[in-house]
Amino acid sequence: MRLVTLVFCLIAIICHADTSTTEKAMPTQIAPLAHQVYFWLKNPDSKEDQAKLIEGIKTLAAIPQIKGLHIGVPASTEKRDVVDNSYSASELLFFDNAADEHAYQIHPIHQAFVDNYSHLWSKVVVYDSVSVK
Amino acid sequence: MRLVTLVFCLIAIICHADTSTTEKAMPTQIAPLAHQVYFWLKNPDSKEDQAKLIEGIKTLAAIPQIKGLHIGVPASTEKRDVVDNSYSASELLFFDNAADEHAYQIHPIHQAFVDNYSHLWSKVVVYDSVSVK
Repeated sequence: MRLVTLVFCLIAIICHADTSTTEKAMPTQIAPLAHQVYFWLKNPDSKEDQAKLIEGIKTLAAIPQIKGLHIGVPASTEKRDVVDNSYSASELLFFDNAADEHAYQIHPIHQAFVDNYSHLWSKVVVYDSVSVK
Repeated sequence: MRLVTLVFCLIAIICHADTSTTEKAMPTQIAPLAHQVYFWLKNPDSKEDQAKLIEGIKTLAAIPQIKGLHIGVPASTEKRDVVDNSYSASELLFFDNAADEHAYQIHPIHQAFVDNYSHLWSKVVVYDSVSVK
């Protein structure tokens, strides 16, 4: 009977793992406030400056209010009139609410990021979106 | 001993559940290609048109290549010069790769969305970002 219990528990663990893998990337798993930032470099052709900026963005991951993080560069999707792929790097941060986004803005790590890396960019555009049900 | 095994298994299940809750929204859980779309309505003050557009965006969720979905409206974060909160609705879709994003573009559900709802908007801006390691 111990073996039966063990097998049952293993099946339960495996089923649980399968379910959470399937659900992980689905809508309900993403915190509701998306903070989407696009950066244009002063030297848009400088791979070195792009790498430095990405290095800076990565430091933000240590800020505890961040519930999800996607650091990107323009993707190789089809060129269309509506697609803006002129930016150099993007960050997409998820927060539980606007208060957490504010706490992030004034967090010393974010302040240090602005102090140390803002000389690299010429333009920033931010979109803050809250999820609708 | 059956009880000990059961307790052990329960602890394992609980620990696993805890771990997956913590990890769910973290970077590795988000598919690498973020397709970020912002819509400006022809009638930006029409809550009815905004609701219709959101209804249309929700139909996209049935497209199988989509690995994550965030449908939003401007959040109540601090007004700053760099923040653009003039759009009416946003969609943020995650894909595994550019081929899947293309399959989404030509999917009949997406085509129907464009046919049935594009009369509502005056402008669309798209950013496609691929995750950097």
